[in-house]
Amino acid sequence: MSQRLCWIGLLAVLVWGGANSMTRAQAPDKASRAAIVERIVRDALTHKETYAMLVDLTTKAPHRLSGSPGAAAAVEWARQQMIRSGFENVRLEPCMVPHWERGDIGELKFAEPGEATDEPLPILALGGSEPTPPEGITAEVMMVKTFEELAQRRAEAKGKIVLFNHPMPQTDPSTFSAYGAAVGYRSRGASEAAKAGAVAAIVRSMTTRLDDFPHTGGMRYQEGPKRIPTAAVSTLGVGRIARHLEAGRRVVLHFRQNCRWFEDAPSFNVVGELVGTTHPDEIVLVGGHLDGWDVGHGAHDDGAGTCHSLSAVRTLKKLGLRPKRTIRCVLFMNEENGTAGAKAYLAAHKDELDKHVFALESDRGGFTPRGFTTDANPEALAILAEMATHFTDFGAERMLRGRGGVDISVLREGGVPLVGFLPDPHRYFDLHHSWRDTIDQVNERELELGMAAIASLIYMVADMEETLPRNPKPSN
Amino acid sequence: MSQRLCWIGLLAVLVWGGANSMTRAQAPDKASRAAIVERIVRDALTHKETYAMLVDLTTKAPHRLSGSPGAAAAVEWARQQMIRSGFENVRLEPCMVPHWERGDIGELKFAEPGEATDEPLPILALGGSEPTPPEGITAEVMMVKTFEELAQRRAEAKGKIVLFNHPMPQTDPSTFSAYGAAVGYRSRGASEAAKAGAVAAIVRSMTTRLDDFPHTGGMRYQEGPKRIPTAAVSTLGVGRIARHLEAGRRVVLHFRQNCRWFEDAPSFNVVGELVGTTHPDEIVLVGGHLDGWDVGHGAHDDGAGTCHSLSAVRTLKKLGLRPKRTIRCVLFMNEENGTAGAKAYLAAHKDELDKHVFALESDRGGFTPRGFTTDANPEALAILAEMATHFTDFGAERMLRGRGGVDISVLREGGVPLVGFLPDPHRYFDLHHSWRDTIDQVNERELELGMAAIASLIYMVADMEETLPRNPKPSN
Repeated sequence: MSQRLCWIGLLAVLVWGGANSMTRAQAPDKASRAAIVERIVRDALTHKETYAMLVDLTTKAPHRLSGSPGAAAAVEWARQQMIRSGFENVRLEPCMVPHWERGDIGELKFAEPGEATDEPLPILALGGSEPTPPEGITAEVMMVKTFEELAQRRAEAKGKIVLFNHPMPQTDPSTFSAYGAAVGYRSRGASEAAKAGAVAAIVRSMTTRLDDFPHTGGMRYQEGPKRIPTAAVSTLGVGRIARHLEAGRRVVLHFRQNCRWFEDAPSFNVVGELVGTTHPDEIVLVGGHLDGWDVGHGAHDDGAGTCHSLSAVRTLKKLGLRPKRTIRCVLFMNEENGTAGAKAYLAAHKDELDKHVFALESDRGGFTPRGFTTDANPEALAILAEMATHFTDFGAERMLRGRGGVDISVLREGGVPLVGFLPDPHRYFDLHHSWRDTIDQVNERELELGMAAIASLIYMVADMEETLPRNPKPSN
Repeated sequence: MSQRLCWIGLLAVLVWGGANSMTRAQAPDKASRAAIVERIVRDALTHKETYAMLVDLTTKAPHRLSGSPGAAAAVEWARQQMIRSGFENVRLEPCMVPHWERGDIGELKFAEPGEATDEPLPILALGGSEPTPPEGITAEVMMVKTFEELAQRRAEAKGKIVLFNHPMPQTDPSTFSAYGAAVGYRSRGASEAAKAGAVAAIVRSMTTRLDDFPHTGGMRYQEGPKRIPTAAVSTLGVGRIARHLEAGRRVVLHFRQNCRWFEDAPSFNVVGELVGTTHPDEIVLVGGHLDGWDVGHGAHDDGAGTCHSLSAVRTLKKLGLRPKRTIRCVLFMNEENGTAGAKAYLAAHKDELDKHVFALESDRGGFTPRGFTTDANPEALAILAEMATHFTDFGAERMLRGRGGVDISVLREGGVPLVGFLPDPHRYFDLHHSWRDTIDQVNERELELGMAAIASLIYMVADMEETLPRNPKPSN
């Protein structure tokens, strides 16, 4: 396990200890906060409205890839949810999004007769990939584990299908950091393979499981190298190919997919508020992303974050918990393949950036809550860590140093303290960007307790006497 | 949420703080322990042998109710696992177990024509129940929420089927304590209903979900009242019945089941050891229970605890981590309906009870580890809490005051400090004692990290310089 994480944990504990002594002076505040958290938790576990909302979203708009009719359905669904729940200033904020479609499911198969011929090699085109020619590509496979290995064996790659077999490191206790250590092969693999003369790139799926579900996800072509087609193959599929290569046999694969780019399409972020009582111009942002991949139903990614955010504001409104500052729920469009929504939000709200006092994103699934990660400075971290102690009862008290999230990261230039919701990490990459990301993978209680932690934290921050200390603005 | 849990949390933190300062004097020990935990975690997440073991158990002996051929298969499976993994002193320790069989699946249905007639009411006989007459019982339903309500409306119960509709409290953050608050209706409902003259008792399934899976479990007849048949009905099934009653309609149900008692059967606890280097006569016990219900595959209950225990000792052996004291793996028979194995273990080992220095049980499923609960005295708790800080990296650092487990509770009379493994609680009662308790509900990483925490804790305790402080023996 990583020493780094260990030190972060220790730091959190020390910070936590400091915050703890600090709050002994603020005992009444602590007691009233505890009562508020208890009301929120009780309401969540009694009524389970977040889960009902997620069932509704994944039923009415299961496939929400940017530019698709499903994404448009999700936008209208979210707008109606906000109105129904009594949000204020509900509006659609426009953005133009990329529009890519998968086409049919594509195929990857062993091309030469032999005992291996019929073994399944399930694939999914990576989001943004070019298609193969209609007749497909038939070529020998070159398997590499790393970009370094590809560089060393560069001469072998010409005319081949390069297979990047780079597993997410299993021994990392955080699957999120394990994902970070491997996802570069998905996003950059095609261009790196093309530079070496390859005709296609196949990438081992980003998952900690051995199974036959391929996992898609975004990729990006660099300027310059040929735009060769690329797809993810299931981890068991990689194993089948690898077995033959490791036995010294030449493997020829046939690869076909007919995904396609269209013109950018109009879409929207969906925004609604609970206006603050005494500082209505100061904004605490809470959000997730409304778009999702076209496979599975995006129940965890990011239906969970969408419903966490909607339901958190809905719960505060319902319980009459209106804080001093405005809580703004932003459901971002196009996190998965372009972040057009986040960029449009920044552009539209540039002149109120200094009024954003805090932002929280939920985009790591709806599993049992463990706490949060944050880029806040030590002083703000201590305050947030003290707030999180109210979640000890249900095990969500961690406030670790780390990232906020992809969408809210655009607010970093304003020095806004960013927080990311941290659920238990072990099941997320079993289903991330795959057919398995469906409602049956969501546990009601886990989802509701995550929502309760989020609702409680944004309420506490929005209702502080003083503003949470900001981060220094990054120098340009 | 409960104030009690909150105070326990605070106590654990304070104790933890104390333990933390204590260990600053023992820095080298702490570093070497960290290295050992890291080796164990790395091995677990790399090879995932616990999960492979659980796949094997649930494939070869899926149904392991005491006295069944499946339970006998599980005993032999466990013995062979121990031998294959190089355990020492492997043996079967005999016990006589109750032998009850479910028969066919039984039925509960609306008995009078009407629109409700076809609505499904899935049931499972409770373990230990008498059958109905072969033609079944047809009677009016009386629904009560509590024993108090039954007492107040006692005159109405005569000749009826009493339906105990007592939900597990949803707002308790611990599903285990919520179970404790409701399970009395399952275990005692039949006799209480019989005292009021009822002809049968139907109990709302012990689960936090609304679904159509009934959940079985043990029940016990009191001496005296008539032994009336009893079964659990799904939570949605309860809802269907309740809807009609609440609309003021009379509901008549037809209930039939043909479960049956047989003579006690011979069976075994399975025991194996890793003999200690310098104090081989002192015993650190680790275990789970080998038996399970006849529905589902007992993947979580308690295949997980069985494989946690086997794999913990296997891992220590494999990594050459032989501690000062003997680690004894005990897989108990008959936890579910009689605890004959635990009682037999106590009887057979009465004269070495003082040599048992510690016992750990895993019987709350194989979900993501959160820590442990213990009945250890404050001094021992502080030592254990310090050990658990080594599990912070993967979020299993809690050492809370609480129970050890049903099987090891027999050791309480020797003052043995008892510890129960504490996984995340939210999914357990979705599947507990139901058809859903199968391997697909188990996540490899979650199972392995639980095993790693258990292996690390028993190693640290077994390798201490001094013996862990004991509890006072209860006065008789």
